[in-house]
Amino acid sequence: MDAGKIKEAIQWRKLIDTLLDKNQYADLVLQGGYFINVITREIYEADVAVKGERVLLVGDAHDLIGPATEIVDVRGKFVSPGFIDSHMHFESAILTATEFSKLSIPTGTTTLVADPHEIGNVLGVVGMKAMVEEARALPNHVFYTVPCLTPDAPGLETAGYDVTSKDMAELLNDPYVQGIGEIQGFSNVHPVFEHASELIDDQLASVAYAKSIGKTVEGNAPGLFGKELAAHIISGGTHVSCHETTTKEEMIEKLRYGVSVFMREGSSQRNMAECIRAITEEGLDSRRAILVSDDVVPEDLLKYGHMNDIVRRTIAQGVDPVEAIQMVTINPATHFGFQDLGILAPGKRADIAVISDLEQMTIAQVYINGKKVAENGELTVDIPSYTYPDTVKNSIKRGPVTLADLHIELNHRRVSDTKANVRAIEVIPDQNLTETREFRLNVKNGVVQPCLQQDVLPLMVVERHGRSNKIGKTFLHGFKLKSGAIAESVAHDTHNIIVTGTNYEDMVTAVNRVIAMQGGIAMINDGKVVGDLPLRIGGLMTDELTGKEASQKIAELHLLAKEELGCGIHVPFMHLSFVSLVTSPKWKITDMGLIEVDKFEVIPTVID
Amino acid sequence: MDAGKIKEAIQWRKLIDTLLDKNQYADLVLQGGYFINVITREIYEADVAVKGERVLLVGDAHDLIGPATEIVDVRGKFVSPGFIDSHMHFESAILTATEFSKLSIPTGTTTLVADPHEIGNVLGVVGMKAMVEEARALPNHVFYTVPCLTPDAPGLETAGYDVTSKDMAELLNDPYVQGIGEIQGFSNVHPVFEHASELIDDQLASVAYAKSIGKTVEGNAPGLFGKELAAHIISGGTHVSCHETTTKEEMIEKLRYGVSVFMREGSSQRNMAECIRAITEEGLDSRRAILVSDDVVPEDLLKYGHMNDIVRRTIAQGVDPVEAIQMVTINPATHFGFQDLGILAPGKRADIAVISDLEQMTIAQVYINGKKVAENGELTVDIPSYTYPDTVKNSIKRGPVTLADLHIELNHRRVSDTKANVRAIEVIPDQNLTETREFRLNVKNGVVQPCLQQDVLPLMVVERHGRSNKIGKTFLHGFKLKSGAIAESVAHDTHNIIVTGTNYEDMVTAVNRVIAMQGGIAMINDGKVVGDLPLRIGGLMTDELTGKEASQKIAELHLLAKEELGCGIHVPFMHLSFVSLVTSPKWKITDMGLIEVDKFEVIPTVID
Repeated sequence: MDAGKIKEAIQWRKLIDTLLDKNQYADLVLQGGYFINVITREIYEADVAVKGERVLLVGDAHDLIGPATEIVDVRGKFVSPGFIDSHMHFESAILTATEFSKLSIPTGTTTLVADPHEIGNVLGVVGMKAMVEEARALPNHVFYTVPCLTPDAPGLETAGYDVTSKDMAELLNDPYVQGIGEIQGFSNVHPVFEHASELIDDQLASVAYAKSIGKTVEGNAPGLFGKELAAHIISGGTHVSCHETTTKEEMIEKLRYGVSVFMREGSSQRNMAECIRAITEEGLDSRRAILVSDDVVPEDLLKYGHMNDIVRRTIAQGVDPVEAIQMVTINPATHFGFQDLGILAPGKRADIAVISDLEQMTIAQVYINGKKVAENGELTVDIPSYTYPDTVKNSIKRGPVTLADLHIELNHRRVSDTKANVRAIEVIPDQNLTETREFRLNVKNGVVQPCLQQDVLPLMVVERHGRSNKIGKTFLHGFKLKSGAIAESVAHDTHNIIVTGTNYEDMVTAVNRVIAMQGGIAMINDGKVVGDLPLRIGGLMTDELTGKEASQKIAELHLLAKEELGCGIHVPFMHLSFVSLVTSPKWKITDMGLIEVDKFEVIPTVID
Repeated sequence: MDAGKIKEAIQWRKLIDTLLDKNQYADLVLQGGYFINVITREIYEADVAVKGERVLLVGDAHDLIGPATEIVDVRGKFVSPGFIDSHMHFESAILTATEFSKLSIPTGTTTLVADPHEIGNVLGVVGMKAMVEEARALPNHVFYTVPCLTPDAPGLETAGYDVTSKDMAELLNDPYVQGIGEIQGFSNVHPVFEHASELIDDQLASVAYAKSIGKTVEGNAPGLFGKELAAHIISGGTHVSCHETTTKEEMIEKLRYGVSVFMREGSSQRNMAECIRAITEEGLDSRRAILVSDDVVPEDLLKYGHMNDIVRRTIAQGVDPVEAIQMVTINPATHFGFQDLGILAPGKRADIAVISDLEQMTIAQVYINGKKVAENGELTVDIPSYTYPDTVKNSIKRGPVTLADLHIELNHRRVSDTKANVRAIEVIPDQNLTETREFRLNVKNGVVQPCLQQDVLPLMVVERHGRSNKIGKTFLHGFKLKSGAIAESVAHDTHNIIVTGTNYEDMVTAVNRVIAMQGGIAMINDGKVVGDLPLRIGGLMTDELTGKEASQKIAELHLLAKEELGCGIHVPFMHLSFVSLVTSPKWKITDMGLIEVDKFEVIPTVID
């Protein structure tokens, strides 16, 4: 038994004494509010009495008020359990857990379940443990669901560390680690079953271990139905979540199969309005319907809020407000088996969102562990910034590249060739998946040339973990860049350096700029830096900027990409970063080359 | 990790192979039934495909049917997860787990959560472990929730063994032990807090230990509201159940406080019709509403059924049938954290109740772990009877009593006294609790005499565990016995021998008959045995009779009590057995004497 459990028992004893000894009183009473009971799905007038970090009772608390009790008048306001974001990535916001929490807490979100699979791919156990360390110092509750497999497609890409079942004991026994995160290796069921069946055994070993020590397992089953969905669920130990459910039909199927559906409402991917129809139109029991953000950018956190904003949008779809709040409180707490979170009842943690406008989900005050942490959108506690160790900040392990390194050459170099047929990945706006294309391009001295007219640019992934030292090469269509190059060390999921550009020279400069910064984003035009952003924590997150500063910086870079490089696709860094994600169809690029996802193999870029 | 978990991982792998390899098939398909989905609260047509012990999928299973697949046509019938009884005592049915299960399985009940606190009081860890052993051989799922405290009131009564936190590791680490059972020591909150506060510490230690190894804790909070209810909940580790909730008002309060309300529908205590009004009239979310039997006699199991009967009665109260079935499937599975039970979904245990009439809850077939175990009310598998070790069958550890042992004498014996004022416990029909009375009785040679006119009988509890050797004495009112005596070794919760009668001589004979049988019930009239029933397993359960035979035997004894002894109260053995239960008000009797429950102390029977 860890000491935390014993401490809890001592706290229980103190609560009991306070309740039964008529000379002891609550520390804090929120008086006269409309209490949102997410267990019974009711709203009624009740006080919330708190002692230390925990709730004494919710009801009539008048005889728990003593001379030293702090009384907060919440008449006319709604008192809810603090909200839980059940699936999110700090890396998507390029913020540390600390900076993210500073934006999230004032919105009433008191618990985050973060998946660190980006840093897990870069730095493995070391990187994830560093993020877990950061969580311990935060006032909100931050839990991690860790990957059991990095890279997603072993043999087809190179991660900084290969997480497998061998690492589970070390990771999962930490009380801040909730369980295994979105199981990826099995998301494209048939290719894995046919081509890499041993991955399933390793995953099952991890899953069985996790469950044997009471930990949970999250899934990821976009587009799966019937037998494939069933196989996915079983591969996660028979109860998983899915945060990539996009249609009403999928929502119904998954709920019927027992999946906890994490309806995603991030900055770009918004699936709730479609999924919720299973509940609003078909009347399905919503106990396993849960709202998550997945990927949210700092700008949106600042402008709209976090889980309160997602609840507001859900209410706007015609869902009863208390039912919508259940989806960010008791439902996720039940899914994860959180003993002390998600409801306000005797002995539970006093994590409270006081809501001044229920339809608008305006948050007046936030309490965590019985302590006021935010009021009217501003933090009321100081959260010191966290310094990551150098091991995490020096994650780029390779020297600069040369022009010759990046050139895409003919398979059999002949000076006489002037044209070549090549394959190219077509980026589809706002999607992870890509289309497949072929083009005929000019060749100069054996090097295949970019073609702005056809919008075909060289595309590379430069391994940066000091392992394969490889550079995968292909072409990109649909990125609509007019000049210069963009490189970044954010490239899902192994986060090697991805680069594209209108000319090889700027691409070299861009990659080398990212290497010199120890990670980040670089835009180059005519050999000059147009804009850049260092992301020194694993090459993924800023160690310098606050959420607000990061938001401004990203907006500035987006503007520069458009104005200086003429880039015609919006959020180009995000689109570029997903072209390397080999768990979604059809063609992707890794340091190993062009990948045909469904066949689980590398295919040549230059056809002839 | 125990081997069971590894075996599970291997089973998962086989299921995945069956789902994805098009040359592998289901073992069993229940085809074309109306599927009761307790997750989404829907009924729709779907097949259930099973491999080995587990569900492959629920939906269209046509391509999982191979040449060797057994197809069962269930068109027109309803297919539900097997039912869970979340709180019951085998001892109440005087049956072993085996004999109880033989009656329960054909009713669609596939999981029992049994509380062995009766045998725990008699034989402690040894007795409970013997019952756990029995469970391992059964086809249904039987889990135990064990007491963390015996006796309920240390210092006021003598049990055969004092269970405390010291025993938790040994008990709770067994996979068949679900957690800690109904916490009793704190059910009368204020007396314990004021008079035996150290019990709370010991209970919290047990609870914290249980939770640290992922086990659950059940509560018991009859009549508690507000601060007392909150204190009880916290003393159980902040999430408990209550199976003695009797009013709508209590139901609302407890659900609001996060309690899982186990609505009791046993043979004598029936609380569902009142409790359910919180749902049918107030529309409360029913996710924490659960149906249990608690105490059910074999006759009722035979005549009406088990959980199917309770569901039928719940439907009759106006509850949607699927919502009622949720209360015996997904709701309890969620409460206990059962990973594999309570829903039919990929990878879950194939525990299935096929229902031919939903309103009447007529059970056509029952499957457990994918195997048919009952059809049309009859078992289709052989369940061998279980032999308990002699340690469990020799639980009466005292020699015979004499007349002098039982005589209730004046405090200061004076031959001249002819009258005495005495206290008497008044039994209230169909209740655990008692009233307090005083009477003036005749005295002969210093011995206070029974008085049939006033219906006042001597009442004793004779310690039988070989520990205190004490005999507690008082008087009983309201039992309406006209001649003879009744003794039994079933006397809650310490199960010493309780006896009452119209004359001391027959009482002596009755007690000695129970001792000679090594436990059971004995009725004596004019020195002769009118009827008896040996209960050799801990003095609580029969090791000879089947459920049907036990039912007949009990009916016969009830008839004899009425006809031969003129006993005017129905179910006299049950009423007698509860007069010693010191956890409910007002006066009770133990081997220590007459107990004033609220004051937590022994008071004299003879006043002057």
